[in-house]
Amino acid sequence: PKLPKFRFSDVQQHGSKHENPWIIRGTKVYDITDWVAAHPGGEIILRAAGGSVEPYWKIFKIHEKQFVYDILEQYLIGTVDERDLVDGKVPLENIEDPFATDPIRDARLRTLTDKPCNAETPGEVLKDYITPNEVFYVRNHMWVPIVDDTYRLTIELADGSEASYSLQDLKDKFKKYTITSVMQCSGNRRKQMNDSVRPTNGLQWTVGGIGNATWAGVRLRDVLADAGFSVDDPPEDSQHAQFMGLEAYGGSIPIGKAVDAHGDVLLAYEMNGETLPPDHGHPIRVVVPGHVAARSVKWLSKITISDDESMSQWQRKDYKCFGPNEAGKENWAKARSIQEMPITSAFTSVSKISDELVAHGFAYSGGGREIVRVDVSEDNGKTWKQAELVDGDRKGHKAWAWKRWKYQISPEGAANGAELVVKATDEAYNTQPERYDAIYNVRGNLATAWHRVQL
Amino acid sequence: PKLPKFRFSDVQQHGSKHENPWIIRGTKVYDITDWVAAHPGGEIILRAAGGSVEPYWKIFKIHEKQFVYDILEQYLIGTVDERDLVDGKVPLENIEDPFATDPIRDARLRTLTDKPCNAETPGEVLKDYITPNEVFYVRNHMWVPIVDDTYRLTIELADGSEASYSLQDLKDKFKKYTITSVMQCSGNRRKQMNDSVRPTNGLQWTVGGIGNATWAGVRLRDVLADAGFSVDDPPEDSQHAQFMGLEAYGGSIPIGKAVDAHGDVLLAYEMNGETLPPDHGHPIRVVVPGHVAARSVKWLSKITISDDESMSQWQRKDYKCFGPNEAGKENWAKARSIQEMPITSAFTSVSKISDELVAHGFAYSGGGREIVRVDVSEDNGKTWKQAELVDGDRKGHKAWAWKRWKYQISPEGAANGAELVVKATDEAYNTQPERYDAIYNVRGNLATAWHRVQL
Repeated sequence: PKLPKFRFSDVQQHGSKHENPWIIRGTKVYDITDWVAAHPGGEIILRAAGGSVEPYWKIFKIHEKQFVYDILEQYLIGTVDERDLVDGKVPLENIEDPFATDPIRDARLRTLTDKPCNAETPGEVLKDYITPNEVFYVRNHMWVPIVDDTYRLTIELADGSEASYSLQDLKDKFKKYTITSVMQCSGNRRKQMNDSVRPTNGLQWTVGGIGNATWAGVRLRDVLADAGFSVDDPPEDSQHAQFMGLEAYGGSIPIGKAVDAHGDVLLAYEMNGETLPPDHGHPIRVVVPGHVAARSVKWLSKITISDDESMSQWQRKDYKCFGPNEAGKENWAKARSIQEMPITSAFTSVSKISDELVAHGFAYSGGGREIVRVDVSEDNGKTWKQAELVDGDRKGHKAWAWKRWKYQISPEGAANGAELVVKATDEAYNTQPERYDAIYNVRGNLATAWHRVQL
Repeated sequence: PKLPKFRFSDVQQHGSKHENPWIIRGTKVYDITDWVAAHPGGEIILRAAGGSVEPYWKIFKIHEKQFVYDILEQYLIGTVDERDLVDGKVPLENIEDPFATDPIRDARLRTLTDKPCNAETPGEVLKDYITPNEVFYVRNHMWVPIVDDTYRLTIELADGSEASYSLQDLKDKFKKYTITSVMQCSGNRRKQMNDSVRPTNGLQWTVGGIGNATWAGVRLRDVLADAGFSVDDPPEDSQHAQFMGLEAYGGSIPIGKAVDAHGDVLLAYEMNGETLPPDHGHPIRVVVPGHVAARSVKWLSKITISDDESMSQWQRKDYKCFGPNEAGKENWAKARSIQEMPITSAFTSVSKISDELVAHGFAYSGGGREIVRVDVSEDNGKTWKQAELVDGDRKGHKAWAWKRWKYQISPEGAANGAELVVKATDEAYNTQPERYDAIYNVRGNLATAWHRVQL
């Protein structure tokens, strides 16, 4: 096609402050004006505006995917004039690697992307009720921010009034609470939806985008009350609690959950009895039990009480779910932000116990709804047996933790390599959908269909 | 078989006070000792002990079902001696009909049993957001009790202390609250599970065992506080709020729901702006929004705060649900009482609007979880379109009301008589199971699979 040619100096003028930011990839020029709001990494993309995106993608390797290239191609407006090329290429600048100070991770984690770090817990480890810190799945949207003694948490109420706390203030001023709660990524089990229906855009988590830990800290409710918020009767202009992380990530939850005396939302500074590790939000992580982990913002820097949800694109253009009819035409403004998680379950490992094959797994439902039953089938759902539920020490007002389960595979199933199918039921008697195609969404979120594994 | 013969006077000795109560049906004698606790009508069965059950069954016509005869046959111990028969039959006594004073019902209700009255709302009426009182489904376990001016509601706390209120006391002393809430029987849509898998024991509701109304009354939380209960910090020995009706029906809810300031549990005395009708619990009905209607006890006479669930067989041996592996071997003690309802949806009617066929229906989820999407398929779930959601005036802290929806049937579907399939999704992104067989239970409770209707 007859695309216009731009001089490199033209592109430089379309930098991060320009109304229409441009970027270069290879020798092609893209106008990303309409993409910024939808970019999963948010406005950080503007760092690359006015020049080549490639030095950034060499670091943010999450972009090296065909669907990312396809998205960018929609914004193509021209090519770089040959006069500005060296050996046929655009000269690349050197940029600083913000991930250079990320922590060293446990080798057992299964890495999906290293910059930012996204890594899942191996199935064998998920056999235990408590997931150890060093192998707890990591889902970072950016680098791990560096925190020093000047750290303060700021709270801004809807009337504009502010309060501010150091970590020590929080520890000294408020009662310490401990809960046991699952964290689960909305994309957990995405790979099975991807493989069994159609490609999905997102990290291909198998079953390890989940973990269960004890979290200790102070109640958000108590801190908000101290900051002057009317927790027992939130005013009309205060419908959401927005959280901002030090690295720029943001999300929000409805105010009802934030102030619920039985909702157990914590500003946590301990995980499994240890100081919160850097990968999990040191010094403070919001822990919103029963909700998608995307709202449990790490490296918390600010809480804003507002009449509206967080404006971050992770709240507005991500972490939502869609009908199977919406593939490719998602209405992001209309779709409900994922908050409480739907019921799910999965096989995590198989072990041999005195000549018997035993399948292990987890079952979990959002909103504190306890798992009451796990059904396993060796004949594609024609007949079912119940797995044995294995509970642990639960802390908190509701069933925020998961249930572990085990199931003794029949000798025939073990010998013939049966396909096992698992589904769970919670105390509201909600259960999982049978197939992925009826819940398919192009983001691959909430892939909660019956979980299948071939022995 | 060589069954023993008993004289009628032997049977008479096994009356309601006897350790082993017996009843007669036809000329057969049954020892119902083990059945009393499981009898869906509770100890009322003992009224017939020591004689023939038939005069009672002529009134309680709900018993004229093969599965009832089959249950009774398990307890056969002998036959009545020929010397006590007249014309080969046991002479029957005359008993008073407790249903003689039941109200006259609207002819549009579809009667399932008349004594006790169980009648569903016709699908065409369910098209409206508010279900009118006179066609609101009726699910009575017994007769409608007669209430006079001596009516008082008694509250007993776990420490044995009591309080008592007249209807006027409740109106005078406490603030009036109004909510909009669905009532739904756990057996709604049972007929489709029954017809598509295997027979189920219970009333064969199609889609009309549900209705949506405004309810006005006082908050249970406020009345309990007035009675001296520590609503913000319930003591350890106070885990359940038990409700007893004037006709002997009973049920309970967890204390957390009873005292939740956002839980909206009412002691209602108005329904859709009118005095609560006799069929719906006059003078007081507990309204537990988001929960199965079985806990919204009518003709409320007593509330007991206890460390345990209601001992009534409706709490212990009914209104529970089971795995598909448990048919015929239900473990009632282990199964969780149905409280919050799972998500469901249904077609209720089809209308012709200027040459277009439009399907109408409802979608509802328990726990106040709002419906966010309704998907309709004309090709057995291969492809889906979204129905248009129609909301109404919602009152209360959560989405206790249903969503109405409508869907324009394709010209091809209308011409070819397509089978329509509907499923809904709520704000926790829970959705309905695809098939009935994976959730089959012999009681036919919570028949929430994708709803299908042949045009």
